Amino acid sequence: MRVSFVAGASGDWSIDAIRAISGTGLGTAARLARIEAGPGDRDSAAWVLEGVRSYDRYVTAEEKARLAASSPELGRADARCATLIPIRKREEWWALAQDERRAIFEERSRHIAIGARYLPAIARRLYHCRDLGGPWDFLTWFEYAEADRGAFDELVGKLRETEEWQYVAREVEIRVRRE
Amino acid sequence: MRVSFVAGASGDWSIDAIRAISGTGLGTAARLARIEAGPGDRDSAAWVLEGVRSYDRYVTAEEKARLAASSPELGRADARCATLIPIRKREEWWALAQDERRAIFEERSRHIAIGARYLPAIARRLYHCRDLGGPWDFLTWFEYAEADRGAFDELVGKLRETEEWQYVAREVEIRVRRE
Repeated sequence: MRVSFVAGASGDWSIDAIRAISGTGLGTAARLARIEAGPGDRDSAAWVLEGVRSYDRYVTAEEKARLAASSPELGRADARCATLIPIRKREEWWALAQDERRAIFEERSRHIAIGARYLPAIARRLYHCRDLGGPWDFLTWFEYAEADRGAFDELVGKLRETEEWQYVAREVEIRVRRE
Repeated sequence: MRVSFVAGASGDWSIDAIRAISGTGLGTAARLARIEAGPGDRDSAAWVLEGVRSYDRYVTAEEKARLAASSPELGRADARCATLIPIRKREEWWALAQDERRAIFEERSRHIAIGARYLPAIARRLYHCRDLGGPWDFLTWFEYAEADRGAFDELVGKLRETEEWQYVAREVEIRVRRE
């Protein structure tokens, strides 16, 4: 299922900050729309990021069941904060075999385990876009309550210290809020 | 890197047969072009299948090194036969976790091991298209000499007997030849 994140004059979310973590950033805009069906309003778009909900690339059946049990839906009434993080990894990452990527991703970086510690507070949805040929490999969308902003900062801080993140070539953080 | 297989009036390969193995087939055409850059000539196209060369989803580092050592390039002068096989797998396959898919794919179906037995005779290139949103998940392109047609038939026959193939919802075989 295709998703578009459209930044521009309209959209449910107001953009608080756009911060380049690695590599080139993204242009400023007032609002952000997350559109899971249809093209959305692109007339006023500053930029559009597209991805697809796809199959899991790394989780085992056991991890998948555990995540499903504690993962909340998007759109919770009190989740008025969200962050969109597009990421591109280095070509070295993609040249690794599946077992090498899995070992870095989970056995050594604990990506799944770290994220699970912040469930159900920090809801997360991953979209894939590497095969679409644009400048990004993934778009991750996080939703959380105002009271969990500190927890969210801690979560992304921990991930950025991992061995996996040494393969991140470009990362931008788009912090948004819903009134 | 994007590839387009364009079936129509032009292209390096003449189509001998298009055979639906599972599900709906594809329309007839005289010739097939494999285009790894640019859109190609689509004016006369009966159909166009698109995919991307992407990263490996299942091979381990050891398997990858072994395959690389015995895999020939495409375009060998004596490889005048080729077959394009688009495949779509059932949603049940995609709902499995990575370890479950890997176990079916290799530990139980020996997909990599079976293919390796036919190297270097049968050259193979896999393109991914599931994330592109069309009707197919993969396009596999095989090239081989006239003398290895029997070996090719044996290879696809063996794969179609595996547990993995129970997850194949649609498969078409497009056999082509280069003069």
